[in-house]
Amino acid sequence: MKRPIIAITMGDPAGIGPEIIIKALNNNSVLEACQPLIIGDRQIMEAAARRTGRGFSVKSLSQIQRSMPEEPAYLYESSHLPVNLVRSGIPDPEWGKPVLGYIRQAAQWALKGQINAIVTGPISKEVIQNSRSSFTGHTEYLADLARTKRFGMMLAGERLRVSLATIHLPLKKALKVLSTEKISQAIELTHEILTNHFGLQEPHIAVAGLNPHAGEKGAFGREEETLILPAVQSAQESGIRVTGPYPPDTLFYWAAQGRYDAVVALYHDQGLIPLKLLHFENAVNITMGLPFIRTSVDHGTAFDIAGRGLAKPDSLIAAILLAGQFCRNQKNHP
Amino acid sequence: MKRPIIAITMGDPAGIGPEIIIKALNNNSVLEACQPLIIGDRQIMEAAARRTGRGFSVKSLSQIQRSMPEEPAYLYESSHLPVNLVRSGIPDPEWGKPVLGYIRQAAQWALKGQINAIVTGPISKEVIQNSRSSFTGHTEYLADLARTKRFGMMLAGERLRVSLATIHLPLKKALKVLSTEKISQAIELTHEILTNHFGLQEPHIAVAGLNPHAGEKGAFGREEETLILPAVQSAQESGIRVTGPYPPDTLFYWAAQGRYDAVVALYHDQGLIPLKLLHFENAVNITMGLPFIRTSVDHGTAFDIAGRGLAKPDSLIAAILLAGQFCRNQKNHP
Repeated sequence: MKRPIIAITMGDPAGIGPEIIIKALNNNSVLEACQPLIIGDRQIMEAAARRTGRGFSVKSLSQIQRSMPEEPAYLYESSHLPVNLVRSGIPDPEWGKPVLGYIRQAAQWALKGQINAIVTGPISKEVIQNSRSSFTGHTEYLADLARTKRFGMMLAGERLRVSLATIHLPLKKALKVLSTEKISQAIELTHEILTNHFGLQEPHIAVAGLNPHAGEKGAFGREEETLILPAVQSAQESGIRVTGPYPPDTLFYWAAQGRYDAVVALYHDQGLIPLKLLHFENAVNITMGLPFIRTSVDHGTAFDIAGRGLAKPDSLIAAILLAGQFCRNQKNHP
Repeated sequence: MKRPIIAITMGDPAGIGPEIIIKALNNNSVLEACQPLIIGDRQIMEAAARRTGRGFSVKSLSQIQRSMPEEPAYLYESSHLPVNLVRSGIPDPEWGKPVLGYIRQAAQWALKGQINAIVTGPISKEVIQNSRSSFTGHTEYLADLARTKRFGMMLAGERLRVSLATIHLPLKKALKVLSTEKISQAIELTHEILTNHFGLQEPHIAVAGLNPHAGEKGAFGREEETLILPAVQSAQESGIRVTGPYPPDTLFYWAAQGRYDAVVALYHDQGLIPLKLLHFENAVNITMGLPFIRTSVDHGTAFDIAGRGLAKPDSLIAAILLAGQFCRNQKNHP
């Protein structure tokens, strides 16, 4: 079987993105799982390779062709930054525009079906907001390019998969906008990704409660009955194997024990606290609802350690391998 | 050194309390760490012993004496329930009054300094509310008996200690009542328990943020600056080694890695999700701010498995051993 083509966006040139990509390209299982196509900047990649004591012999590609000669990996030179002005660890709003270009290029190819998946390197929201003030994150930007409002975020590790009904909002606001509709959508997207991408048959999804002890029969809140249960029931009626709401403080333990295939969490930290506790270095961020496969590192630009050779590529490698697995599962899918 | 006397309240007679006490009494380290004084019901304890295939040869005690003869353990017969009417696994409001009596007796002795610590067995709030409608939990009841409004809850396992700034409230309400004062008090109580009971010198306390990424400089909420930071700063000024607020989703990972001695969480599930993920079976519940030592099992009555010999005594044993350690540390304290 031919390896799927996975576009890997370089992320912020001053962050750890270039460095962890170099490290990932030196990982055999990455090169076996896919044909990586780095979308970024040659000089930045070469500098990162030098700093980590490695070479960068990746060939450049000017456009995607139907049958490209087999190479370990390719580079698409989306930018030509003044490498002497890019200082690792120091965010610079100048790089917002090219970084955005890497993502846009990847999305365009993915939407046309010219590549099989996108894996995104870490970016800085603030840096990009300089050239696109409405930018709130990769996920929202990709959904915008794909013209869908029906999308969501899942984080996955070996022991725990968590998807979110609300994402980057102040907690008070998240509780205000939380609705049966949002929870229903999260359940449906979770079911789709588990079946279509993870290749699970009849996956079991658990939904977290909102209040301590899931409200303890109304003693500590009623959202379990008014908001959450209706979403669970309507998903059940449409044939999804979903149960809950469960007391949040024990649910993640049971999910990590294998009782459920994924948990729908209602707000950012409800899902991310347990996820990062178990999978601090190797969680993968997955965008649900896009018309193409997209995974991402589960960490930021780490400007504090960028350029020092310290960054671990574990999350990037996990993201690439998972995207590769999704590609294979999709091909098996009718 | 003479063993400290630790009162162990039996908890609900139809729950797993009697059974796990029997199991704990068969644990040598428990008997080495303290002189257990069960406050409960002889016939119920004997029935639980029979069901678990063990004997119950514990002598009864009618009152606490200055110098009691050394016995492995003692029983104070606080009730004489009709044992044939107590059915394991079936909650009965009839038992609310005697169960409350066990706790009250323990508190009275502790307040007079006649015992060294209290460890409480699991109770059912609903059952007790039948005889005392205002009952919201052990912690609040003991604080009431001790006439203090300055108290709090900590949960401790080997890898993680978490104390809570708000406890059993609907999440929306918890966010409404959360204040700098409440966070300050939680920091102070946490510092007291870490130094006086755990015997730590200059413990490092971390405070969690409220919003995703601790608000990300105001992008996702401002409570970090308006509510939390002032509490951290005023505690620092009073000499407490405390830092934060930190992004909640990574803080618990770092705490579990040993970077902090305890985390102050702002709402129930923020603290309990990570705590139970790491310490599902052996976490100990500690009441902070009482004039006596009190620890507790970190689980409920488990009516679903009561009477079947399945209940694990791990949390109870951990609670007794920790209370014993607290007693020794207090003695060492000037």
